[in-house]
Amino acid sequence: MAALSEFSLIERYFKQLTPQREDVLLGIGDDCALLQCPADHVIAVSIDTLVEGIHFFTGVDPESLGHKSLAVGLSDLAAMGATPAWFTLALTLPKLDEDWLHGFSQGLANLAKQYDIQLVGGDTTKGPLAISIQVHGFVEANKAIQRSGAQLGDMIYVSGCLGDAGAALRLQSNQWNDEILNEQDRVYLQQRLEQPNPRVQLGQELVGLACAAIDISDGLLADLGHITEKNGMGARLDLTKLPLSSALSKINQQLAQVFALESGDDYELCFIVPSQHFAEVEQRFKGQVTRIGMITDDDGIYYIDDNDNLIELKGIGYDHFIN
Amino acid sequence: MAALSEFSLIERYFKQLTPQREDVLLGIGDDCALLQCPADHVIAVSIDTLVEGIHFFTGVDPESLGHKSLAVGLSDLAAMGATPAWFTLALTLPKLDEDWLHGFSQGLANLAKQYDIQLVGGDTTKGPLAISIQVHGFVEANKAIQRSGAQLGDMIYVSGCLGDAGAALRLQSNQWNDEILNEQDRVYLQQRLEQPNPRVQLGQELVGLACAAIDISDGLLADLGHITEKNGMGARLDLTKLPLSSALSKINQQLAQVFALESGDDYELCFIVPSQHFAEVEQRFKGQVTRIGMITDDDGIYYIDDNDNLIELKGIGYDHFIN
Repeated sequence: MAALSEFSLIERYFKQLTPQREDVLLGIGDDCALLQCPADHVIAVSIDTLVEGIHFFTGVDPESLGHKSLAVGLSDLAAMGATPAWFTLALTLPKLDEDWLHGFSQGLANLAKQYDIQLVGGDTTKGPLAISIQVHGFVEANKAIQRSGAQLGDMIYVSGCLGDAGAALRLQSNQWNDEILNEQDRVYLQQRLEQPNPRVQLGQELVGLACAAIDISDGLLADLGHITEKNGMGARLDLTKLPLSSALSKINQQLAQVFALESGDDYELCFIVPSQHFAEVEQRFKGQVTRIGMITDDDGIYYIDDNDNLIELKGIGYDHFIN
Repeated sequence: MAALSEFSLIERYFKQLTPQREDVLLGIGDDCALLQCPADHVIAVSIDTLVEGIHFFTGVDPESLGHKSLAVGLSDLAAMGATPAWFTLALTLPKLDEDWLHGFSQGLANLAKQYDIQLVGGDTTKGPLAISIQVHGFVEANKAIQRSGAQLGDMIYVSGCLGDAGAALRLQSNQWNDEILNEQDRVYLQQRLEQPNPRVQLGQELVGLACAAIDISDGLLADLGHITEKNGMGARLDLTKLPLSSALSKINQQLAQVFALESGDDYELCFIVPSQHFAEVEQRFKGQVTRIGMITDDDGIYYIDDNDNLIELKGIGYDHFIN
């Protein structure tokens, strides 16, 4: 491992790039970092790994990859309503590629600056390309938004638009195409896949308003399913309300809905709001969030079709629409 | 990734195995874990990755690998004098192998119980075998032992014996052998490589006594070098004082010294003690620690040979002795 010295790589490419925070008493360069949590707050932590060929395409733009590697963790903090503070980076690289490291570290650093999150430790090793990032944030004691907490009659909201990342993934892997999409649409979709915007500010503002939340990394149905299962509840969705980008609004509506329901990688928030906060949420986050359904005591997640039939949203795959 | 669901793997193999701590307000199963740091303490964190073929042999006993993956991080906490509290696990696996997972999780859990450290989060992904573990511990504010803090005339100590892991590595990779080693010696050496004992308790007891410390993961010379460089100091070692196990005491003395100086993976502590604490350290840790030299204002790390020459310990490789 002489050629890829942990110390010099982290020092050279990463240490100075991220914000320097006062609550980092000791940063990179010792056996441990020493970190101070503010009084009356708890620490929220989450770790995620991205592996080449599984989570991203070989040859993906390193700056985008740096962005996405951190965005994934920030999205988890957002889902708890936590304020980002620190992160660590375990980077496994097949070889020392200065251009790649420069791009990757820039993408990481730009997002880190935006959210005032400091790199406080890391490990670089030789091996197949993989990135593990652990994020740490603060949230006031007893204020974190968890997956539990949803009750019958609560409303289901999502941020932003859904399905863009899934559409981009299928375009890029030649699993699907639609000539109606112009160059601008394609660039937009690719950016949504490669450089997701974690909803950090929204998450923090939802503290005290949302009673449950999750970030959409595995797809709306799967992630909302984690909430309903955890609470022993079900859900009914209005598929016509699923928020679609202008790009996805052009394509077959049913296919766009399937993308919105099943695509991972959107990193939007799905959150649950009790009746006493409907009005405030609708007014305060107008244009940012969309009400898509309601928590029910059904066993599963359903929608009502044009003939007023209650249909379970289970096993409806996009394959049906593209084959 | 259907076959290797993150949720079920972590839930099934790891969640219940480690201690349940009161300061874990929310553990595995949400977007983040929620953790509470005790008042007047700071959090010490360290992340390390072990990659198959780089840090461990293909086919290594999974229980030993589970032990070692956590031991590496605990050793970093030990070097700061921190008390272990929580860890996270990012596990990348080529396939779902139940026997392997059972063994790995047992090795991890046994060590976790010993040090009351709880698994609070994780991510499992498909890919080439690699393990990243982040450990978190507590240390009283302003009490952590850092690498900086060594001064002229301070004494250099190490815990345990040195060189065993390096000898085992060379035995196992057929780079070296010595017929004088019996079966018991070989088993002992292999255990030192595969199941190192992090010096957690010693590290905590050194708070207030040691002015600097590091754990020996890259070899004594390299790691002591981090301390001397950080402090703008040098060191003189008495090579005859390097603590050797009974196994390594049997082999060529110079070669054993080279193993002790250059081998990584021992996970002993190297720590620096100022004059006012010599007596207490010698008495309190008798049999556990050995004084091996002194901090000097030399530029580098030296020893004095039989002819009273000052020789720099740089670039003395074990190749010299085995070719």
